[in-house]
Amino acid sequence: MTFATEQFAPVRELFESMLDADPAYSAQLAVYVGGTKVVDLAGGPDSTPDSLTGVFSVSKGVAALAFSLLVQDGLIDLDAAVAAYWPEFARHGKGAVTVRQLLSHQAGLVGVQGGFAMEDYNDLPAVAGRLADMAPLWRPGSGTFGYHALTMGVFLEELCRQVTGERLQDIYNRRIREPFAADMFLGLPDSEEARFRPVLFDDGSAGGFLDPGSLAGVSGNVQAGNLLALPNIRSVRAAGSCSGAGVGCADGLARVYAAATTGLDGLEPFLSPETIAAMSQEQVWGLDRIFCDTSAFAITFMKSQPRMDFGSAQAFGHDGANAALGYADPLYGIGFGYIPARAEEGGTAGRAMQLSAAVRKVMLAAG
Amino acid sequence: MTFATEQFAPVRELFESMLDADPAYSAQLAVYVGGTKVVDLAGGPDSTPDSLTGVFSVSKGVAALAFSLLVQDGLIDLDAAVAAYWPEFARHGKGAVTVRQLLSHQAGLVGVQGGFAMEDYNDLPAVAGRLADMAPLWRPGSGTFGYHALTMGVFLEELCRQVTGERLQDIYNRRIREPFAADMFLGLPDSEEARFRPVLFDDGSAGGFLDPGSLAGVSGNVQAGNLLALPNIRSVRAAGSCSGAGVGCADGLARVYAAATTGLDGLEPFLSPETIAAMSQEQVWGLDRIFCDTSAFAITFMKSQPRMDFGSAQAFGHDGANAALGYADPLYGIGFGYIPARAEEGGTAGRAMQLSAAVRKVMLAAG
Amino acid sequence: MTFATEQFAPVRELFESMLDADPAYSAQLAVYVGGTKVVDLAGGPDSTPDSLTGVFSVSKGVAALAFSLLVQDGLIDLDAAVAAYWPEFARHGKGAVTVRQLLSHQAGLVGVQGGFAMEDYNDLPAVAGRLADMAPLWRPGSGTFGYHALTMGVFLEELCRQVTGERLQDIYNRRIREPFAADMFLGLPDSEEARFRPVLFDDGSAGGFLDPGSLAGVSGNVQAGNLLALPNIRSVRAAGSCSGAGVGCADGLARVYAAATTGLDGLEPFLSPETIAAMSQEQVWGLDRIFCDTSAFAITFMKSQPRMDFGSAQAFGHDGANAALGYADPLYGIGFGYIPARAEEGGTAGRAMQLSAAVRKVMLAAG
Repeated sequence: MTFATEQFAPVRELFESMLDADPAYSAQLAVYVGGTKVVDLAGGPDSTPDSLTGVFSVSKGVAALAFSLLVQDGLIDLDAAVAAYWPEFARHGKGAVTVRQLLSHQAGLVGVQGGFAMEDYNDLPAVAGRLADMAPLWRPGSGTFGYHALTMGVFLEELCRQVTGERLQDIYNRRIREPFAADMFLGLPDSEEARFRPVLFDDGSAGGFLDPGSLAGVSGNVQAGNLLALPNIRSVRAAGSCSGAGVGCADGLARVYAAATTGLDGLEPFLSPETIAAMSQEQVWGLDRIFCDTSAFAITFMKSQPRMDFGSAQAFGHDGANAALGYADPLYGIGFGYIPARAEEGGTAGRAMQLSAAVRKVMLAAG
Repeated sequence: MTFATEQFAPVRELFESMLDADPAYSAQLAVYVGGTKVVDLAGGPDSTPDSLTGVFSVSKGVAALAFSLLVQDGLIDLDAAVAAYWPEFARHGKGAVTVRQLLSHQAGLVGVQGGFAMEDYNDLPAVAGRLADMAPLWRPGSGTFGYHALTMGVFLEELCRQVTGERLQDIYNRRIREPFAADMFLGLPDSEEARFRPVLFDDGSAGGFLDPGSLAGVSGNVQAGNLLALPNIRSVRAAGSCSGAGVGCADGLARVYAAATTGLDGLEPFLSPETIAAMSQEQVWGLDRIFCDTSAFAITFMKSQPRMDFGSAQAFGHDGANAALGYADPLYGIGFGYIPARAEEGGTAGRAMQLSAAVRKVMLAAG
Repeated sequence: MTFATEQFAPVRELFESMLDADPAYSAQLAVYVGGTKVVDLAGGPDSTPDSLTGVFSVSKGVAALAFSLLVQDGLIDLDAAVAAYWPEFARHGKGAVTVRQLLSHQAGLVGVQGGFAMEDYNDLPAVAGRLADMAPLWRPGSGTFGYHALTMGVFLEELCRQVTGERLQDIYNRRIREPFAADMFLGLPDSEEARFRPVLFDDGSAGGFLDPGSLAGVSGNVQAGNLLALPNIRSVRAAGSCSGAGVGCADGLARVYAAATTGLDGLEPFLSPETIAAMSQEQVWGLDRIFCDTSAFAITFMKSQPRMDFGSAQAFGHDGANAALGYADPLYGIGFGYIPARAEEGGTAGRAMQLSAAVRKVMLAAG
């Protein structure tokens, strides 16, 4: 039972044309505008509207929405030193690194030499300790930033633990997922396992030699194998690392962004305009040290930019390694969720971005 | 009556070869060296030596020459906060933004949501007020910069108005255009209308979807249509926005740069070496947030760089959307102006850059 | 008499395949692991194991190893102003430029207008004086950096002279080259001339016009002709400019990096882990203002990055204009030297990088 309002028929048509073009393609798409659901589509052999699957780094955006509550509550000051909340972090010359720098990929702590083992994903305080005890891999404050693929969630979680004593996912559950009835999980409970569908992916052979000790190798934790397999491991998705082990459906994903920014079902948005402004302000732009391509980051959230053109200057969100995408665009009042069953290509030419453009074209046509 | 000195015959030959290669091509080229005119050429069906046409963002460079006088006079300190001169600018966390940052495209105020209407171009204090009242579109001071296509002139004008009570174009007229007899206008008077030739351009259909709310959309004010048409509107070129509504001929353009740096007709240069050094020092380099390509900016002025290689490390100037180009190169004593009748491709492979290289080759051959 | 240990047979095989593929190809390759030589190969018509040739900017890395001793001895504080050691440097607004900025290519002093004459390479205090007396070619502290091809060595040498009264090459000879018996010279003595082989190179005609007054032209000192010819001039290699006039063999080059980081022949490493961390920390990353391509620099040393992927995140070294390469990779305990007889293409696809990858694959296979 999927639907789109009459106004958003062009979005449904585009989605259907994608399904028609490839019988193996499966995905979910959900869009809210002003807190009202306008699109909820699922299709293909491997997706139903309420099937759940891994969303990879989309988890970072979901976790950052929860973290925003700590900023809003005054528990975290973005301009404070990380060490003010997490004293061990000051080691190896990191005493002056601010929360703002850490959460915008500037701290040079993209991973650890020797890599993480599988069980590390489920014991985040231990991982946090290893990161606190390392020297930055570039000079923090130099303007260099690079994608902290597997450690960004650790920082969000550890800062939360230090200031609240709680896990970030517990706060997420209590203040976001449950009140807004969002099928989007950081830590999938046993009760939802029946709806889980494994992430599908083609395990392409790698290109050239990637030194596991190089920045790209450390960041990608390459000695541990293909990251795309991770959410398919029950213990990993049960632990629900905020870096990338979230599980959800597109409607749940769109709901959390809508709940944050426009409110939903008569409930006020859980973030104030001031908090949204602080968390979604672009902090860094340019050549990412890890990607060696352009990135634009707010506080954890990605910002729209030519390489990944998902929204207006006010939009903020995050994509995942499978090209899933979740974002809010306050300019248009949009909450958006897209989750493919099989990992696909992302970026501006990808399906999520095409669908996002179709949504905005409908709204612009309406004036 | 166009001419080139014998020494600069190679430049004339190159220009003539461009005219021969394309019967529809029309342009003007003027070069001064050490304050003496060495080249003044015009050709093709749509340009005469004293026809005037729109120069788009070349206007920014001309306006910045006038603004330099405010710096030279001690009325503006580049390291002061903008808000020291323009108190309203402090709103929304912009209190610490310096003049230097604002005028080197770092402030994140590339446009306004909803865009400018046509009449806004002619009511710049109102536009300035809207910009003062907005939050930056990225974090100022983060190192990010991006081309402020339609707002840079507003900042130059509003700062001038705040410290002098006069319009920048009035100062330009009184201290530059009139004493140096330069056929280059910020605000075209009725008396010169007869010499105006509309800008010619091919209204190519755009490529993909450009969200008017995106950074690129806001910066380009895309909801208002093709910017190339603007100087062809009488009220726009009469108002003479410093961002892009200047009108002139190549000789006038070359004269203002020569007058600034080498002097002209027995008059001393109107800028001191110290002012030239301060205004032409490169402030930012790298991937422009709007262009997503390399830019290098001094205080408003563009600097030569691989993508737009118009001069020595000392050169400073500005191009326009039609690929017009004006600059001074103090190393060689050059004042340069190039204005095509029809908007063409710019950049290092463009005609203006080829002509600039030809001029410098002549000078280097002379030793 | 060249050799590779049995473990490193794949590296020998790769090197031999390169020799087989091109009868004109000649080069030397040496690798130490943990202070023990594991590879020492030479082949082709123009290289023997102990022939010496020019290594160009590889000299910068060798000189920086010697300079590291001044930092280790407490004679130089990277965060001090350059002018604290070299008072004349404060001229033209350079008083606040730190040693860290200067030695990570941020100071905008890539060369001098008018260029260096040949004899300047042999009178470095005079060159230092000219650089101290110039204004930066971009705003220091703006985040901009660009390769100081011919001046980086001048800064290392002048800072050394100011704080010790000695030439950096004298310190290098006394504390590194002689005790560690490294065939790698900054200033080739008459006694070693018989082993010198001129650098071979193809004097390809240049592409487009390169203005000698442009940033790229000033940096490359283009008015003086092809830099590849310089070490072939006896007076230049005798003077041994630290920017690029070093001469050595691959074994000597690998030895200095091994001596610095792992020790050699029972001698302790001459740099402490703290000094290595300070000197090898990445300071800048992004689009180099001179190359207009990505660079990553520590204090003088290059860091591994996608465009030049020579090692782990801990690796530091320098390549040369002939694609010679010297580096240490503390993660693996590697000291590496590669010197081709004929200038070739560098970068990630080049032979040095292929050989470096082969070395690391052997070590990773060993676990």
